[in-house]
Amino acid sequence: MYKAPVDEIAFTLKHVAGMADALEQGRLGDLSDDLVDAILVEAGRFASDEVAPLAEIGDKQGARMVDGKVIVPDGWAELYRHWAEGGWNSLVAPEEFGGQALPHMLNVAALEMWNSGSMAFALGPTLTMGASEALATHGSAELKEKFLHKMVSGEWTASMNLTEPHAGSDLGVMKSRAERRDDGSYRIFGQKIFITWGEHEITDNIVHLVLARLPDAPAGTRGISLFLVPKFLLNDDGSIGARNDLHCHSLEHKLGIHGSPTCTMIYGDGKFGDEPGAVGYLIGEENKGLACMFTMMNNARLAVGMQGVAICEAATQKAVEYAKERTQGRAPGWTGAGMSPIIEHPDVARTLVTMKALTQGSRAICYSCAHAIDMSHHTDGAEAKKWAERGALLTPIAKSFATDAGVDVASMGIQVHGGMGFIEETGAARYLRDARIAPIYEGTNGIQAADLVTRKLPLSDGGQVRGFIAELKDIAKAVRGSNLDGFGTTADRLDASLADLEETTEWLLARLGEGNVAAALAGATAYQRLFGLALTGTYLAKGALADEGHGRDHRVALCRFAAENLIAETAALKDRVINGEASLTAARVLFA
Amino acid sequence: MYKAPVDEIAFTLKHVAGMADALEQGRLGDLSDDLVDAILVEAGRFASDEVAPLAEIGDKQGARMVDGKVIVPDGWAELYRHWAEGGWNSLVAPEEFGGQALPHMLNVAALEMWNSGSMAFALGPTLTMGASEALATHGSAELKEKFLHKMVSGEWTASMNLTEPHAGSDLGVMKSRAERRDDGSYRIFGQKIFITWGEHEITDNIVHLVLARLPDAPAGTRGISLFLVPKFLLNDDGSIGARNDLHCHSLEHKLGIHGSPTCTMIYGDGKFGDEPGAVGYLIGEENKGLACMFTMMNNARLAVGMQGVAICEAATQKAVEYAKERTQGRAPGWTGAGMSPIIEHPDVARTLVTMKALTQGSRAICYSCAHAIDMSHHTDGAEAKKWAERGALLTPIAKSFATDAGVDVASMGIQVHGGMGFIEETGAARYLRDARIAPIYEGTNGIQAADLVTRKLPLSDGGQVRGFIAELKDIAKAVRGSNLDGFGTTADRLDASLADLEETTEWLLARLGEGNVAAALAGATAYQRLFGLALTGTYLAKGALADEGHGRDHRVALCRFAAENLIAETAALKDRVINGEASLTAARVLFA
Repeated sequence: MYKAPVDEIAFTLKHVAGMADALEQGRLGDLSDDLVDAILVEAGRFASDEVAPLAEIGDKQGARMVDGKVIVPDGWAELYRHWAEGGWNSLVAPEEFGGQALPHMLNVAALEMWNSGSMAFALGPTLTMGASEALATHGSAELKEKFLHKMVSGEWTASMNLTEPHAGSDLGVMKSRAERRDDGSYRIFGQKIFITWGEHEITDNIVHLVLARLPDAPAGTRGISLFLVPKFLLNDDGSIGARNDLHCHSLEHKLGIHGSPTCTMIYGDGKFGDEPGAVGYLIGEENKGLACMFTMMNNARLAVGMQGVAICEAATQKAVEYAKERTQGRAPGWTGAGMSPIIEHPDVARTLVTMKALTQGSRAICYSCAHAIDMSHHTDGAEAKKWAERGALLTPIAKSFATDAGVDVASMGIQVHGGMGFIEETGAARYLRDARIAPIYEGTNGIQAADLVTRKLPLSDGGQVRGFIAELKDIAKAVRGSNLDGFGTTADRLDASLADLEETTEWLLARLGEGNVAAALAGATAYQRLFGLALTGTYLAKGALADEGHGRDHRVALCRFAAENLIAETAALKDRVINGEASLTAARVLFA
Repeated sequence: MYKAPVDEIAFTLKHVAGMADALEQGRLGDLSDDLVDAILVEAGRFASDEVAPLAEIGDKQGARMVDGKVIVPDGWAELYRHWAEGGWNSLVAPEEFGGQALPHMLNVAALEMWNSGSMAFALGPTLTMGASEALATHGSAELKEKFLHKMVSGEWTASMNLTEPHAGSDLGVMKSRAERRDDGSYRIFGQKIFITWGEHEITDNIVHLVLARLPDAPAGTRGISLFLVPKFLLNDDGSIGARNDLHCHSLEHKLGIHGSPTCTMIYGDGKFGDEPGAVGYLIGEENKGLACMFTMMNNARLAVGMQGVAICEAATQKAVEYAKERTQGRAPGWTGAGMSPIIEHPDVARTLVTMKALTQGSRAICYSCAHAIDMSHHTDGAEAKKWAERGALLTPIAKSFATDAGVDVASMGIQVHGGMGFIEETGAARYLRDARIAPIYEGTNGIQAADLVTRKLPLSDGGQVRGFIAELKDIAKAVRGSNLDGFGTTADRLDASLADLEETTEWLLARLGEGNVAAALAGATAYQRLFGLALTGTYLAKGALADEGHGRDHRVALCRFAAENLIAETAALKDRVINGEASLTAARVLFA
């Protein structure tokens, strides 16, 4: 069973991602080191002792539709209420609405633990937090006053309604429509699909944020508005009023995250109320809905990245435990009696160390992204801009590298379990089934790569990414300057991978400068992975250098393994970016 | 829906794997080119039109235990009977038992198609074929006369009973036991797990091959005997007699291959018959059971490799079809009206071409392995030895590279489908769920790697692998000598990857020569992948050079893509083999 790695999480937050410096510099208000630890310990306890034990039943029962009602797995309603009562929904929310205004870093760390416990369960709160943020940033004072308090407390959950059957990655073609009413409200009509936690009975109300198009809206993405559409309308005193004209038509039957109801939502078909049309309230300005969504989408992407980290951690723990207990054959050098634990076999050991390296690398990247976002909120001027750009640059890498790692590590975890890994009761397969959605939603990893290359590399005319690489090189230099034997050839390896990163970055910037977007896009995914691998090696090194305690030997060993076994792939990835396009273009004949 | 790529299969068999030369040299008896085509066309029709349509219901219903009986999915019993009536079970079996004595190459090609249609369905026949081969090779004349005819015809199915809860990869510790009886028969007692198609009602009898230990047997793998244990005993006239004392205790709940009953089998607990003990008949000699099993295990490993190829093909077809139909966004350079098909987006195109390259590379490796096995049966002396070694060398690569590709390609297929890929009804997720077992069973891919490095590289003192690499280099030379512009830098890329293969091979042979098995094993999996990638590039080139028809442009383009995008990874893999061990050893501190 999953046990939250609180010490490792705290170490990575503080000494790899930068929280210790931020605390020391007083950047995070009156937050203290002790309070951070206390929050992490309690989150770890809750995730390990209360969430994780309900993951399997959630997977097995799944969310079901019974007599038109969406039923969540046994025990999940109580679990959710207990979780919300613990204040976990409100960590980063503004204080005026009952939030705790804590750094994103802490929330991201907590999200990792909820998702390791049960990704399907954690998804609900993740959506509520995202919707709360969008409402807090763009909603009118009146709307916030009416809805935000209970969204922040978790008394009500929220959903995000973007996708339609023909509008997934491309929201510009969505058809859901909104009509203005004289009282300033709107009526919403349309169908939305893949709506996570779109319906359930565990809270008194559900706040749907819905993208729709006004009759006179411009075509494409500039004609989309964002509306708040509650399941139940509110009376003037804020109490629950009439049922709004929206409902869940059906649930999807999915590969994983079974406990999370994935709903097809119907708005305004007349099922409820006197006349068809779901009552909605505009958030932000008309036709600026997508911009409002994008505000929170970066954080949502990072939250999905945390799902990848979370699955990596949980799958690795499970595989290590099994490999220490299961005996089979005799490994070379094994001197014990009888069969050796399979962890002694070189191939199994290699798999497990790889899983650990990907887990800790993904975690460091994601936490560093959260740190950048926090710093952008706690600094001003050029510094704030730098950090905002850093967060923007890291977001697609965090989302894609961590979610790819989630799938890969979960798959490795199955392999370590051998035949038992394929048996559902073992639990290793669930991690793969759950993990597999994360590279897809909140923008596929291919879209993240396009975002990274075409929107993030050009930030500050390439200055942001160049500055970042320079910082990474300093870490490699520090490895070289350290006198730690255990690093082996780490310094050389880091230098080489960062040189690959630099050369590839410059090549892509040059292509963008020429307006050759196609060439840049052809290698975008390879570049994104190259960046993630280089960061993994460098951040592991940063942790190894920073650890002055008993953990240093472990960190140095893991870093060296990553450096000497995993990050050499950057050379092939560089080659793919720079030389791969011509053959890709030529190969299009295959599909003509 | 899957459509068997009969032309591609025939081309690969004939012009990449070597069947055309073998036919021309009369190596394959009176088999003609026309007959090969006719068999492939009919197998393709059956797989596409009869097997594939029943795959989804098989997945959804799964095999179930109802009132103690194992029930297969709706329509599968009729499908199986129809399939066996078509003679598909007997392609390679000896003629004296009703078989067709055709080359393994043809059977392997047919297996690909059955598995693309439904891997869960194809598993049953795969086991029957393996058991038939073991019985044909090692069984007494009497035993063969009684059982083999109906196993070859498919009137009865068969199962292989190796695994026990504590004896998976390491069979030496198995506990199932056999007792001698005065009439020359044995009584078998014990529990076997993960028994594929161990019980069902679709044939009148099931022939179980069971490994067990005699009371006076030596410890370990040298004390294991192989027994034939029928579900129903036979009367003297060969008709079905009394129920034997064995039964299926339960079915496993698995990630995939739901339609295939995976049974826990109990032998000799007294449930049937007058006294406890399942009647068994010795196959081969006492205590030589594992050797009998190994005879057919190589072919079984290749058959599992075909499952990987099969999933690659089916998943790729599905993804290409979807990517051509689904429109979203506007790809760079898209001049059509509205959104472009997603296949136009560079990242999606890259994914699909990668899927195709892995599919065709895996297929070429597996068919070449089958070709070597066939040649070893149709040649004599040194030549037969060479081909037998070639088959032995290629088997672990075929099994592991193709099954890893199956998982990777199925996962890519999900990604191409976006959110739809995660919905079970789409069917893309099933491929991943089914594919995931193949790297595990019949020896995990880690065990294949250990076999490749420690048992196959030393064949003929390294002469086999060296001779093979020399042949591969000739193909690279031919690419350089061709005047085909479309190859781009393929010749350079092949040279580089074959040089990586050669250098790594020599390094491993040197370690083995020193007796440093641990160092060789540490990089075995990386080496296995290196070999597979180098073969993929080289075999795609061989096909491109051989195609004198309209397909050449496509083959050259795909080969170039593989050369310029995929096989550069061999450099990093070489590095991992040669330089990775020290850090792996150091990293063991993480699990101390």
